[in-house]
Amino acid sequence: MNIRLYNARILSMQAGSGIEEGEVWVKGSHITYTGPRKDTETVWDREIDVKGNVVMPGFKNAHTHSAMTFLRSYADDLPLLDWLDKQVFPMEAKLTPDDMYHLSRLAVMEYVTSGITANFDMYMDPASVAKASADCGFRTVLCGAMNNFSQSLKEEEQWYKELNSYHELISFCFGAHAEYTTSMELLQGLAGLARKYKAPVYLHNSETREEVEQCIGRYGKTPTALLDSLGIYDYGGGGYHCVHMTEEDLDIFTEKGLYVVTNPGSNTKLASGIAPIRKMMDKGIPIAIGTDGPASNNCLDMFREMFLVTGLAKLREHDASAVDAAEVLRMATVNGAHAMGLKDCDVLAEGKCADLIIIDLHQPNMQPLNNITKNIVYSGSKQNIVLTMVNGNVLYENGTFHIGAEPEEVYAKANEIIGRMR
Amino acid sequence: MNIRLYNARILSMQAGSGIEEGEVWVKGSHITYTGPRKDTETVWDREIDVKGNVVMPGFKNAHTHSAMTFLRSYADDLPLLDWLDKQVFPMEAKLTPDDMYHLSRLAVMEYVTSGITANFDMYMDPASVAKASADCGFRTVLCGAMNNFSQSLKEEEQWYKELNSYHELISFCFGAHAEYTTSMELLQGLAGLARKYKAPVYLHNSETREEVEQCIGRYGKTPTALLDSLGIYDYGGGGYHCVHMTEEDLDIFTEKGLYVVTNPGSNTKLASGIAPIRKMMDKGIPIAIGTDGPASNNCLDMFREMFLVTGLAKLREHDASAVDAAEVLRMATVNGAHAMGLKDCDVLAEGKCADLIIIDLHQPNMQPLNNITKNIVYSGSKQNIVLTMVNGNVLYENGTFHIGAEPEEVYAKANEIIGRMR
Repeated sequence: MNIRLYNARILSMQAGSGIEEGEVWVKGSHITYTGPRKDTETVWDREIDVKGNVVMPGFKNAHTHSAMTFLRSYADDLPLLDWLDKQVFPMEAKLTPDDMYHLSRLAVMEYVTSGITANFDMYMDPASVAKASADCGFRTVLCGAMNNFSQSLKEEEQWYKELNSYHELISFCFGAHAEYTTSMELLQGLAGLARKYKAPVYLHNSETREEVEQCIGRYGKTPTALLDSLGIYDYGGGGYHCVHMTEEDLDIFTEKGLYVVTNPGSNTKLASGIAPIRKMMDKGIPIAIGTDGPASNNCLDMFREMFLVTGLAKLREHDASAVDAAEVLRMATVNGAHAMGLKDCDVLAEGKCADLIIIDLHQPNMQPLNNITKNIVYSGSKQNIVLTMVNGNVLYENGTFHIGAEPEEVYAKANEIIGRMR
Repeated sequence: MNIRLYNARILSMQAGSGIEEGEVWVKGSHITYTGPRKDTETVWDREIDVKGNVVMPGFKNAHTHSAMTFLRSYADDLPLLDWLDKQVFPMEAKLTPDDMYHLSRLAVMEYVTSGITANFDMYMDPASVAKASADCGFRTVLCGAMNNFSQSLKEEEQWYKELNSYHELISFCFGAHAEYTTSMELLQGLAGLARKYKAPVYLHNSETREEVEQCIGRYGKTPTALLDSLGIYDYGGGGYHCVHMTEEDLDIFTEKGLYVVTNPGSNTKLASGIAPIRKMMDKGIPIAIGTDGPASNNCLDMFREMFLVTGLAKLREHDASAVDAAEVLRMATVNGAHAMGLKDCDVLAEGKCADLIIIDLHQPNMQPLNNITKNIVYSGSKQNIVLTMVNGNVLYENGTFHIGAEPEEVYAKANEIIGRMR
């Protein structure tokens, strides 16, 4: 499809550029032009009047567990380790790959309502999650979730080869669940894979104080120092959560160019703490944003996360000027794409993937137009998402889904799966 | 209009009742029936198929400054007192009553998109705000905002008489801006009005640590102890914000049955701190929720506030079980109504005002239906608001406003007003 979006306020997220009026051309899966109104002889399959609304890169949900939709509002209000051990793990053990496929589609539907165009997903069966995304037309980077109970080094290597050539919307990145669930032998093996493929690695890292204390008890080192000493971070990657980080941990992240993927909604709801975002920024650490899974957050809403990133930083620092809206918007788009290895999904420009969204300014929460960037971060909501396009295909528009499945069928499946387990 | 809402999941918010399937009848401005499907000979002007979605009482925004919409995203990222002195007060001085009318209509539009059916509003010219609400068909309780620079005891008394009989949707409550902006003489006069009319009084109270310290410096007492010693709270009322409260302050609130109106979005964005919500609940203090004004929050979204009330309590207490979703939903509805003196707008029941909303469960963020109350509080969003009804009139439905004004005209006015001041 060749699609022309005209009459737009373009927030390209290119460094140094602000908001420009003009149009965006999409041919097939890519952007072929962004700039002022221009004549062309192209025959358009569709021309979309953006009505002065914002066109910008889609948000990147840089850490989530899509298939956990079945546990939304199922077991709230418990501390993280209890919640994992007593509620989450026993229920997850009952999931089939087919369940994970259906539950991931439900998450994809929620992502597109929030203007999210790609997710960095960690779950038990990456192949099922990958198939769900590919079938929906959604972009997903799978991350290995190896631990002592599921997934192996052999599987990680196999997925690395298979899923990286499975579909243009899908890629795979090495990872493990976390230090506290993964043996030294497996962690060393993971470092071996990183070396062998010169590849980045992601894990949950320093989400809770207990996790850090237990790691120090086991190895005399924080999780970051331990992983670094094993060579796991020698080719980049990063950590999900990163709430309880020492100065030394942060220095390792700076030195190695590792990404912090912050998950403020989940850290708030599970009472895990507030990550030191401003200090990370001061140290030049690139930060991306994730919702975490729907069992802990419980929603998959980048607008909530963006407000929390800046709001919680302000509370933590006792400083209302901490972490500016423009920086948060960069985390949610450009940094997310880079953390996920999606270097062509970061900004709107010729040659980039057509992963973009339209944000409705003709809504009371976006008026007056004093500062559109601040409006998006401080008062934006899912209700402002007019259209979500991934790889040149419109997956969501004016409340209607185009993901190759009927919404009611997806909802029914999710209810059936949790119903079966009760 | 006689309206029948059928095929509903009714979340009446009556004490002890859960969610029941059935219908709600509205005749004129009131509810005449809620319960199981029932035959009737009533000729309905309209029958609404609720499609299994939730019908519940509208949210009550128990503290806001509606007309501050013009300053949304205008001057963010400053500490509260600087922000007030250097940005807000000089700009507000330029507002005309006509400006306040138009700016308040913009806020009303935003309220109804978030399922808010009434607001407790404090601003310079209550009469303009009242007219805006009445013209939109929206319910508003005005609160006096007397301080050393605007409003007088005489005006408060006049508004008390006039606005309480102005329109069925409008009422007025005595108040002052805050201790730190109001002289002892005026505060004593306010206590006199409370005594004379046996009426409750509301003020900003203990929003920042500096405010409390300065009050102790001036009078040797916290704001709460001072106001109580003057007799201001002898007939009830309460405080907006209440972030930095001593044990003694909380005991006064408990003893006098005063309401805390918490404003977590604003307290977060201005880095004011986290209110001790769980301790307040333990002491039996009734808590309502407000968005505060759009210049500090910056959005008027009860879903964001509800998540923050429970999320920030969990962070503050280091306890993921702190402040349950059902309690938060009660704060946002029943408690808000009672704090505002709207005793007939609290629950869905025969004889109550028809101030209600429909929440869409046929959305991915509301699925599966493990626990609808938790879904609303933890993953709900403005995008789930299908319909907002105030006093029997539908003001918002499926994205369309019915407030007697064209949205674009309201947006243009807001942009014109701030444009004039730049």
